[in-house]
Amino acid sequence: MAYFQARTDLALEAREYVEDANGALHGVVVEEYDVDEVEIHVTRVQITTKNGAKLLGKPMGTYVTLEVPRLTDMGESSDVGEQHREVAEEISRQLLELLPQVQECASVLVIGLGNRDVTADALGPAVIEHLCITRHMIKEYGKRAFSQENMTMVSSMAPGVMAKTGMETAEIVAGIVKETRPDAVIVIDALAARSTRRLNRTIQISNTGIHPGSGVGNHRNAITQEVLGIPVIAMGVPTVVDAATIVGDALEKMYKEVKEAAFLKARESVALTELNNMYVTAKDIDATIKRLSFTLAEALNITFGMEA
Amino acid sequence: MAYFQARTDLALEAREYVEDANGALHGVVVEEYDVDEVEIHVTRVQITTKNGAKLLGKPMGTYVTLEVPRLTDMGESSDVGEQHREVAEEISRQLLELLPQVQECASVLVIGLGNRDVTADALGPAVIEHLCITRHMIKEYGKRAFSQENMTMVSSMAPGVMAKTGMETAEIVAGIVKETRPDAVIVIDALAARSTRRLNRTIQISNTGIHPGSGVGNHRNAITQEVLGIPVIAMGVPTVVDAATIVGDALEKMYKEVKEAAFLKARESVALTELNNMYVTAKDIDATIKRLSFTLAEALNITFGMEA
Amino acid sequence: MAYFQARTDLALEAREYVEDANGALHGVVVEEYDVDEVEIHVTRVQITTKNGAKLLGKPMGTYVTLEVPRLTDMGESSDVGEQHREVAEEISRQLLELLPQVQECASVLVIGLGNRDVTADALGPAVIEHLCITRHMIKEYGKRAFSQENMTMVSSMAPGVMAKTGMETAEIVAGIVKETRPDAVIVIDALAARSTRRLNRTIQISNTGIHPGSGVGNHRNAITQEVLGIPVIAMGVPTVVDAATIVGDALEKMYKEVKEAAFLKARESVALTELNNMYVTAKDIDATIKRLSFTLAEALNITFGMEA
Amino acid sequence: MAYFQARTDLALEAREYVEDANGALHGVVVEEYDVDEVEIHVTRVQITTKNGAKLLGKPMGTYVTLEVPRLTDMGESSDVGEQHREVAEEISRQLLELLPQVQECASVLVIGLGNRDVTADALGPAVIEHLCITRHMIKEYGKRAFSQENMTMVSSMAPGVMAKTGMETAEIVAGIVKETRPDAVIVIDALAARSTRRLNRTIQISNTGIHPGSGVGNHRNAITQEVLGIPVIAMGVPTVVDAATIVGDALEKMYKEVKEAAFLKARESVALTELNNMYVTAKDIDATIKRLSFTLAEALNITFGMEA
Repeated sequence: MAYFQARTDLALEAREYVEDANGALHGVVVEEYDVDEVEIHVTRVQITTKNGAKLLGKPMGTYVTLEVPRLTDMGESSDVGEQHREVAEEISRQLLELLPQVQECASVLVIGLGNRDVTADALGPAVIEHLCITRHMIKEYGKRAFSQENMTMVSSMAPGVMAKTGMETAEIVAGIVKETRPDAVIVIDALAARSTRRLNRTIQISNTGIHPGSGVGNHRNAITQEVLGIPVIAMGVPTVVDAATIVGDALEKMYKEVKEAAFLKARESVALTELNNMYVTAKDIDATIKRLSFTLAEALNITFGMEA
Repeated sequence: MAYFQARTDLALEAREYVEDANGALHGVVVEEYDVDEVEIHVTRVQITTKNGAKLLGKPMGTYVTLEVPRLTDMGESSDVGEQHREVAEEISRQLLELLPQVQECASVLVIGLGNRDVTADALGPAVIEHLCITRHMIKEYGKRAFSQENMTMVSSMAPGVMAKTGMETAEIVAGIVKETRPDAVIVIDALAARSTRRLNRTIQISNTGIHPGSGVGNHRNAITQEVLGIPVIAMGVPTVVDAATIVGDALEKMYKEVKEAAFLKARESVALTELNNMYVTAKDIDATIKRLSFTLAEALNITFGMEA
Repeated sequence: MAYFQARTDLALEAREYVEDANGALHGVVVEEYDVDEVEIHVTRVQITTKNGAKLLGKPMGTYVTLEVPRLTDMGESSDVGEQHREVAEEISRQLLELLPQVQECASVLVIGLGNRDVTADALGPAVIEHLCITRHMIKEYGKRAFSQENMTMVSSMAPGVMAKTGMETAEIVAGIVKETRPDAVIVIDALAARSTRRLNRTIQISNTGIHPGSGVGNHRNAITQEVLGIPVIAMGVPTVVDAATIVGDALEKMYKEVKEAAFLKARESVALTELNNMYVTAKDIDATIKRLSFTLAEALNITFGMEA
Repeated sequence: MAYFQARTDLALEAREYVEDANGALHGVVVEEYDVDEVEIHVTRVQITTKNGAKLLGKPMGTYVTLEVPRLTDMGESSDVGEQHREVAEEISRQLLELLPQVQECASVLVIGLGNRDVTADALGPAVIEHLCITRHMIKEYGKRAFSQENMTMVSSMAPGVMAKTGMETAEIVAGIVKETRPDAVIVIDALAARSTRRLNRTIQISNTGIHPGSGVGNHRNAITQEVLGIPVIAMGVPTVVDAATIVGDALEKMYKEVKEAAFLKARESVALTELNNMYVTAKDIDATIKRLSFTLAEALNITFGMEA
């Protein structure tokens, strides 16, 4: 058992760190495969029982993780343009599997969570910037205004963070959903991973929505189907690791080597509390967020019928 | 009668251009005075009847205009700091006269309209940036968390423009108001003036809210007390003049001099339509917006009890 | 003769307004043709004598103007992606004709002029953002670090405006050129047009560099081959029209219709001076600048051998 | 001896971690005192010999560190305004001690280092935004244009990072200094600390300039008096800690407790290399940078005679 609670938003990682990791866990179904052409490794974690949810500290539902080494290698040559397109298409396929309603000309509200003034947290607002927004056009002119037939009615919002609005994001989203009545909500967010190896190259899509505090406790602040009455897809990329997690994991690793009582006592001399509200991120996070936001926006535009 | 419809958001200017400008207009009460210490000229236009509303093309209600030459002269010396403070205090006084409810510890939602990516339209979002947001703190810790007693519960939102959200701003605001139940809404916006002389140095505060399309026609998109059920104050500064207005007014002026039929015909050769969706603004608009947003935010912070 | 000095940065427009516009002008050679596949109209104005320079108020040299109606129509569908590519390729061809040195693996410094905080003036800094910068990589690892052979060594700088730096842009550029010794300089800037019809859809490329004050007077502030000792290409898109120019041109047009003495006197009643430091721009200038900066950056990246 | 090279830009911290920390070090003179009214703790580290420079891994010179707990506590009430002013005044006093030339009406170039698109690295460009720039005004109108007598001629530049310009910052600064001939350079930068306790509340001012690579090795990239021929002051605030440093220090602490061979071997199982190019920063870094940039800019404006 870990002496500190490591934080990860990835169900994939939560699964890896549960004790009996190699064997089967009751209530957790894991399926893996590669999409060879684009070098994407897909892991599908389904949490099917309350026991599984408790074990992984995540709500019941499906979590699809795409590990895409190319995401961090991408330059700007034309070849890269194609790779980026292929990655976006695979994301779109996975998204449609979790939210088949989109294909039927639904109306979708895309929410870009996060603080646009903190680079590592700006993924959500950045994706919104590159989306093709169509709801107002379709309401005004009908679908005939567009060349595509199967087009989704898309609206979007970057609600900002509570420190700047004074409101829970969930309150804002709930209000807008009640007023504008979309058929589904897609929430884009920057995530926290446990391992720096997964930063900026892993995409998680889930049908569980957003649960502040790891899905436990009150539901007042959740952005979920339960609260909103319509499907809620969460899509994100880990861009940070909690600073305490980095240090805690290093100490844990050492303990496994040493396995001595002296170590356990010594470990207490390392104060992790002063790392509260600190996170670890990459130095080139600005270029990374820019690139990721293009790929995710393209995936959404494809899904919504805006790109041939 | 003007051959084109000049646009102005200032009731003050709408009043000036109505034919019988020197005499009294039925349903329009105008009062003027100077606040000498700060060189502010205050004009209070009250539109009291439907006839007055029709004459001025603005909804019934009270429009207070503060003309502040100093707003454009301000440098950054410490003296200027004090003048800026005095201007903010006067704005706060006028605001409280229109919205006395604020003093009674109400909860207020401040909406920053406009497009943060267009400098001349970014006033609303910029003011929001400098506000002291307290709603989430007061909900969590109570008013004791603050040194002040008479504090307002402040929340804010910059909803963005329809081209980027796909939603009417009025829909977004209505949804948030229903969900978070503030006692009043204050809407900040960049305005259009008719005269370039008024740009960046004139503040208008009104209790009529926001009426797209000059207060006529459908109410679906209005941000008003009628729609929201709570008082709505609109506060703005003109930062642009419609390009067609500039040209139209120049031609108008010439016509008054010439008064010949040939002129009327010639005037038609000047196509104003290609000026659609064009506006005139000042070259130093970035520094201007920055300065104005500080002054308006300070006025609001004073009003909400956040500055001694 | 015009009673006010209309400002335009486009040699094409300067040519149009010179009296004997239909006939030949001594010292000015004009050549026009269409590039049909991409619907681009190319005008090549060469000012070959001092007389021509005086007539047009522009320094001697070659000015290539590409009029691209599609630039303002572009949406974001995949078709548009291809059109945008074709436009970028044509710009690149024209650029290489004016600066054949680039193809020989030269080192080029790209300067993004303008104020990044004023939307209509931010074209230069925005183009810089999308460039592939290679000088530091090539200096560290050699050209083998890249897959392309014929690659240019690219460096860039957005020096900011004098009000923010306290220095002439020309001083900054001269200092950097002396220290880093590029073989050529390309300067990107937002321009002023005379006609709103040309805004955001016209690209001018010239080999005359940048001459503050229309090429007359002192050379201290010029960014030119004469001053720097290396070729200087200026590339820009008109994004604004001077407010006084709009009004002045409207009055001029009327005068041509009326041709009466009364008009001349009346015209003096219209004060253009209060329009000083005002400009006219489009309401969707943010989306326009974003799109234009992608196209110009792609044109440069192609030119520098960074896109197949 | 540390098994990894911890990075800190603070001479104060470098001093703390040298073995014989409690006693005297040859070539390092440390002096400490409190400025009680503003709760600032000042430490003045002078490195007076080559031996001292080697011990601390920093070039010879004077490093003044101001530890200001209030910097992180600051809210936005009017009281805070005064405290912020007092802090700025103390910074200005320390700055003038290191650079007495400024008071004699010198010309100063302020360089804002760092990447404006990475929040934790944007301190330099943010400070530049709030400076009163006067060089161009004084050159045009003389000092009489200002009310103050003892005014410094101030210019500034945010040169951007090498990944975006393709040039060493030192090349850009050297070019501009040669062309515009200021009497001194002040370089503002976000720093790396070793301890998270020092983040965002510590200001270091030194007369050693900027030495990439901890002052060792080649001088090509240095921004120093030796290279530029004029005094260079560096002023910065630590906003990040290297991720490897955080983990390395935690392991080090444990080793001191355990002191066993098994530990040394175990430690090698913790790979710090994957933390390369990662850093730790605070979650509210956007608000922090904003506040710090105001305080530092005010300190500079006071120093330059722009605030009474």
